[in-house]
Amino acid sequence: MKNKNKIDLSPNKNKNYTTRAVSKNLDNILYKTFKVLDKGFIRVVDYMGNDDAIVQAARVSYGKGTKKKSQDEGLIRYLLRHRHTTPFEMCEIKLHVKLPIFIARQWIRHRTANVNEYSARYSILEDEFYIPKKKSLGSQSSTNKQGRGSEINISLANKIVSILEEDSKKSYENYLWMLNEKDSKQFDQNRNSLSRELARINLTLNTYTEWYWKIDLHNFMHFLSLRADKHSQYEIWEYANTMLKILKKWVPMTYKAFESYRLNSAELSQEAIEVIRKIVKGKKVNYENTKMSKREWEELKKLIF
Amino acid sequence: MKNKNKIDLSPNKNKNYTTRAVSKNLDNILYKTFKVLDKGFIRVVDYMGNDDAIVQAARVSYGKGTKKKSQDEGLIRYLLRHRHTTPFEMCEIKLHVKLPIFIARQWIRHRTANVNEYSARYSILEDEFYIPKKKSLGSQSSTNKQGRGSEINISLANKIVSILEEDSKKSYENYLWMLNEKDSKQFDQNRNSLSRELARINLTLNTYTEWYWKIDLHNFMHFLSLRADKHSQYEIWEYANTMLKILKKWVPMTYKAFESYRLNSAELSQEAIEVIRKIVKGKKVNYENTKMSKREWEELKKLIF
Amino acid sequence: MKNKNKIDLSPNKNKNYTTRAVSKNLDNILYKTFKVLDKGFIRVVDYMGNDDAIVQAARVSYGKGTKKKSQDEGLIRYLLRHRHTTPFEMCEIKLHVKLPIFIARQWIRHRTANVNEYSARYSILEDEFYIPKKKSLGSQSSTNKQGRGSEINISLANKIVSILEEDSKKSYENYLWMLNEKDSKQFDQNRNSLSRELARINLTLNTYTEWYWKIDLHNFMHFLSLRADKHSQYEIWEYANTMLKILKKWVPMTYKAFESYRLNSAELSQEAIEVIRKIVKGKKVNYENTKMSKREWEELKKLIF
Amino acid sequence: MKNKNKIDLSPNKNKNYTTRAVSKNLDNILYKTFKVLDKGFIRVVDYMGNDDAIVQAARVSYGKGTKKKSQDEGLIRYLLRHRHTTPFEMCEIKLHVKLPIFIARQWIRHRTANVNEYSARYSILEDEFYIPKKKSLGSQSSTNKQGRGSEINISLANKIVSILEEDSKKSYENYLWMLNEKDSKQFDQNRNSLSRELARINLTLNTYTEWYWKIDLHNFMHFLSLRADKHSQYEIWEYANTMLKILKKWVPMTYKAFESYRLNSAELSQEAIEVIRKIVKGKKVNYENTKMSKREWEELKKLIF
Repeated sequence: MKNKNKIDLSPNKNKNYTTRAVSKNLDNILYKTFKVLDKGFIRVVDYMGNDDAIVQAARVSYGKGTKKKSQDEGLIRYLLRHRHTTPFEMCEIKLHVKLPIFIARQWIRHRTANVNEYSARYSILEDEFYIPKKKSLGSQSSTNKQGRGSEINISLANKIVSILEEDSKKSYENYLWMLNEKDSKQFDQNRNSLSRELARINLTLNTYTEWYWKIDLHNFMHFLSLRADKHSQYEIWEYANTMLKILKKWVPMTYKAFESYRLNSAELSQEAIEVIRKIVKGKKVNYENTKMSKREWEELKKLIF
Repeated sequence: MKNKNKIDLSPNKNKNYTTRAVSKNLDNILYKTFKVLDKGFIRVVDYMGNDDAIVQAARVSYGKGTKKKSQDEGLIRYLLRHRHTTPFEMCEIKLHVKLPIFIARQWIRHRTANVNEYSARYSILEDEFYIPKKKSLGSQSSTNKQGRGSEINISLANKIVSILEEDSKKSYENYLWMLNEKDSKQFDQNRNSLSRELARINLTLNTYTEWYWKIDLHNFMHFLSLRADKHSQYEIWEYANTMLKILKKWVPMTYKAFESYRLNSAELSQEAIEVIRKIVKGKKVNYENTKMSKREWEELKKLIF
Repeated sequence: MKNKNKIDLSPNKNKNYTTRAVSKNLDNILYKTFKVLDKGFIRVVDYMGNDDAIVQAARVSYGKGTKKKSQDEGLIRYLLRHRHTTPFEMCEIKLHVKLPIFIARQWIRHRTANVNEYSARYSILEDEFYIPKKKSLGSQSSTNKQGRGSEINISLANKIVSILEEDSKKSYENYLWMLNEKDSKQFDQNRNSLSRELARINLTLNTYTEWYWKIDLHNFMHFLSLRADKHSQYEIWEYANTMLKILKKWVPMTYKAFESYRLNSAELSQEAIEVIRKIVKGKKVNYENTKMSKREWEELKKLIF
Repeated sequence: MKNKNKIDLSPNKNKNYTTRAVSKNLDNILYKTFKVLDKGFIRVVDYMGNDDAIVQAARVSYGKGTKKKSQDEGLIRYLLRHRHTTPFEMCEIKLHVKLPIFIARQWIRHRTANVNEYSARYSILEDEFYIPKKKSLGSQSSTNKQGRGSEINISLANKIVSILEEDSKKSYENYLWMLNEKDSKQFDQNRNSLSRELARINLTLNTYTEWYWKIDLHNFMHFLSLRADKHSQYEIWEYANTMLKILKKWVPMTYKAFESYRLNSAELSQEAIEVIRKIVKGKKVNYENTKMSKREWEELKKLIF
């Protein structure tokens, strides 16, 4: 079923002059489609601000001061380190994303963004479903109830993939049958069309949807620090990784600070700080003489040893 | 498959003293399960504030003034009419809701609430699916692309219901098969369990989920004014109607004002006001001498004639 | 006292190419200073999106459809009329505003914006105070406790203006004395400087501050519908009026719809609708046969008669 | 000038039964006035939820599981450590706060709360001003542009206190004179009253205002982690400290976890983690062989040595 309502993905070829702040590297990839998963994508549709705009906003608070590039970078690092978030809120990015519905459900839990989603009450969804690659089919983790464990053997993986494919396809065929659209090949004029808002409830959670998603830079980084994390579900992690690349193009100074203070940083509890103080003093530490839970202790060991 | 993780629905039998503001009529139905659709429900889990608390908050701004009940009601009506929303934000309600996923997706678009949803990454969903009643199976509206038209004839309705039932069931059975849980009857110890976060993607959008949902009174009324509206999808409209009853028990004065100024009110455009002024002056009006679009004109006629 | 930290108001002279959506009329006035009140201003620092971007976002939901200008305008009017707010949230504007502190306190109550304010903990405020024009010195309204009544006579107005001038000036001089800044003329090296975060508490509420303020188009219009309203305090109303002109340049189609459906519209209560229905049927209406309060009745009469 | 509009501070003596979750220790201090600074206060007006309610909300996501107290505490610590914030958002607290305007301006920057402030457009402010204790009069810090340094000597402190007292008093007297209220002793019937919304602009920033402030537990803790921090301005830090005591009474288990993972925790950058790994391996570290800025290095040394 070809969707006549599908939005145009061709790049905007009109170049215009502007006196606004520009991020040339991001402007160069505007409207470009970055593939994610088997049928998903991310495209940058628009943005506002760049590294300079963050510095400029900060200087409304702190005064104009110096102007060398090295000092700009120092200021950006200072702001991010001390969680002075308002200057980062002064930049925005707008993405066009195609993603499976079960990922859309995780994604939308971040309430600080603006969203315009494809409406399946109004229009007809296409027959596109997320089917994981066989090597991504992790078994249920035995230690982490919400995680994946080892890879699944190939014969079982084959079976799972065909279940997913068949059930998606079957549900979609019945969706089309219930819709009974005038311009479909199977159109039966003696039969009522079920309303779109109802027919869609037969679709599976791996069906792809699309949306425009707009967020400020501070909340974008917060989203990425959670979703590019190893505890994140693999599928949204893939989207987060593509967005990290976009972030790096957009605001390279901020990106470097983000790596230091968010992406690769760690929060140490009061109890963990005490352990490190002991180590620094040359004392022996082991689980028994900390005040930490077993799991915290293991995490700390992994971090610092 | 019985879900051992299912949360306890038995009412809290412990009564405690409190000096907090109490809404007796709401307290009396706390934890009670109100059925919605075929397998859904709404339960009030907690609340904060009552009509008096709104008045009290307003008087922080406006001064203590008079104290008669009649004046309290007048103040509440004044606040709602003039969209002085902050006193209504001083009250909160917390609901436990069981609802189909496609409704959860509409509901969550209201970003001002707090939500704790059942996690299908962590736990296993039950085999419960929304199957519309046959008389609710509206055909696709010919005038409103996102609405329902006339009822569907019984033989087609029967067919549609069995499609929905079969596809939900089939997808769920394969979900269980892929999960291959140790305590299921079909457990096969020679086969890996697919991670829960992946197996769930095979489920259909009419599968039920659950959440705790907390919202302040101002945003609750905003939600209800949109979702108890006739343009709302029938299924969420049903939830909204149950919530209207809850609202009435909780804050009866506010509820009456809400009926006057939100639920049964109408916003008139500049052009519509001009039409009414003409009518008041005894002039003839028809579509041609207005500045309205055809659709606006039809809506105005329906409203005032 | 000249503030070395003052931020640079000179326009950005660098023109860059961009493939982003552009609003030429807004781009042309970027960084330009629009005076407001005696010493305040508004400057547009950046923006994202234009009328086309709203249409484009809406078509993610509704499908691509037609492309004529007339249809774009119809779609924008439809969206605004039906409070489909998400496409308008896809545009942003960033303003640099200089405003008295008592206005900043009203302004900041709109929580959906991003703000970077000049920090008087960190930097020194300038000796600039809002002194109302004599003709703006309204007396206390006798009917509206939070409004202004008739103009104040000239001799009293003169007296009030000199009180405001003297008290602001006196407080500011003592602020400088307590700060005892090294580079001030009165610097006394034998005396400690009071910390900036404390010295500022001596300043009066009409002292000017500055901020960067960023907001999406939906919330911008909501702000304007409240603050460009006749119940708004005159001083913030002046800022709102300047912003209306900016809005018109930025998104001219949206601006026209905003006039019809927000700025010059009216919300009619259930009781008011009943009155209008009676009039339409040719029945006599007077206060006694309505269910309205006296004040609501007066407001309705003013609206439609 | 006695303000007739002042809101009633007498405790609610009505005890009611409720089946809602109760925090007995918080209920016991409801409406009690905790003094802050010279004339400010905090009172708890209402609350929703307790430690159990957090556990209950978390178990909507994770399943019912075990029920021992020790496991509840473990779960709360787990949630806070992993920044699973939604269960904490399920609790609310409502405070009545009296605070100087310059502190209100800092406080309101936290946008996730609900606020009802005393309206000086509508009512008349009282003659109450924050006058710092002499020992709180820190000099401007030489190292931290927005901080306080050493104590100011007593003769200068005396001078500063009298400046603050005199300027506040003078401005307030002129405020009353301009208001020319009918029931004031100085009422002059031959003179217009200046509107309240204008007269107030003559007041100084240390004038006290009042508000109701409502916030969910997650955002309350975020507020406290910023405002009970040593970089916070002393005056708001005092309010934060009183709120910490309130937090401890309300949700004692959460409070303990909050101490471990927020109040006394530290975030380590990627570069700081590398330093600690070196130390653990027994290597020598000094500023030169780190990748940290001088300031970061000093902060790390203070934390762990």
